[in-house]
Amino acid sequence: MTATAARRPQQDRSRATRRRLLEAAVDSLAEHGWTGTTVSVVAERAGVSRGAAQHHFPTREDLVTAAVSHVTDARISEIQEQITKLPRGKGRTEGVVDILVRLYTGTVFRAALQLWVAASSDEALREQVVPVEARVGREAHRLAVELLGVDESVPGVRETVQATLDMARGLGLANVLTDDSRRRRGIVRQWARTLDAVLEEGRRPES
Amino acid sequence: MTATAARRPQQDRSRATRRRLLEAAVDSLAEHGWTGTTVSVVAERAGVSRGAAQHHFPTREDLVTAAVSHVTDARISEIQEQITKLPRGKGRTEGVVDILVRLYTGTVFRAALQLWVAASSDEALREQVVPVEARVGREAHRLAVELLGVDESVPGVRETVQATLDMARGLGLANVLTDDSRRRRGIVRQWARTLDAVLEEGRRPES
Repeated sequence: MTATAARRPQQDRSRATRRRLLEAAVDSLAEHGWTGTTVSVVAERAGVSRGAAQHHFPTREDLVTAAVSHVTDARISEIQEQITKLPRGKGRTEGVVDILVRLYTGTVFRAALQLWVAASSDEALREQVVPVEARVGREAHRLAVELLGVDESVPGVRETVQATLDMARGLGLANVLTDDSRRRRGIVRQWARTLDAVLEEGRRPES
Repeated sequence: MTATAARRPQQDRSRATRRRLLEAAVDSLAEHGWTGTTVSVVAERAGVSRGAAQHHFPTREDLVTAAVSHVTDARISEIQEQITKLPRGKGRTEGVVDILVRLYTGTVFRAALQLWVAASSDEALREQVVPVEARVGREAHRLAVELLGVDESVPGVRETVQATLDMARGLGLANVLTDDSRRRRGIVRQWARTLDAVLEEGRRPES
């Protein structure tokens, strides 16, 4: 056994601890908000000693930076996982809209929302959050174009895709204080009908 | 001069002080967020002594409750003020969508957003905010139906109006960390075209 191989189990444990801390930070953000999310709170939630947590993230800023990035990766993974589950043909558009809306109604969105709002009155945090949000926005847009099978060179298509994602974000916000799922279902269904009507000439032929 | 008439100037001054405090609370919420909005901070911002502020709002909770309500009234006034400014005929739908979107991109929306997010991890605050938000939502919906001149008994019309307001809310959220006005303009224009196309049979004859 080489020295490198001997170090691996320890590295694996360290990585697992780090991941547990990041996931706990996201859950804590979503549940307790920005001010309720400290290194101690997250360490306890992750079942990690405070010392071990501080080894990974010496300051709250460090934890937050890493959690923002982790939130991003989690959201992009969510997006990519959904692709394979979609039906073909009739009902596909509603499925696509539903996937896009789900991106903005889960725990990850709630955590991200807490970050956005905290960043709006914290210049240093804003500088970290803005590029991450821009990346998530680009990924979500690219996915929406791909799933809807549309051609953005057709006038109006790009703006309609953007409007769909903005509506999804608005539905996410409407779901923060109360369970909005029933109202949301009707809106998603009608939005899919509207998209089918207005995107008809912007659709790429199915491959 | 009766005793009642003599008390009036003092009551007027007291009402003016109260209004200044509420407006300062909304500005403070929008700018410094929930945690940065204390009675002392708001008093200083309003140019009112701490003692006078505490006479009106003994606790932070009192100030917040009143500010939530004030935010609501301000948003509803914003809605009503816009009605008279709309053009008739061609371009009206874009004007309507623009008004609805503006409801979610100003200072009042930023303040409300801070309240929603703080309320999501504060049960007592949530109980105050939820009914207020429901009232604002109903007012905004009623206004959208009126301005668009649509008949909600036509299938799909209600959901399309709701989707328009959810899109507006999503655009508001997208504007919190960066100036999103350029992107927003294109979306508003295209969405107005879509509404004109899909709401055609749901339109009430112009009176």
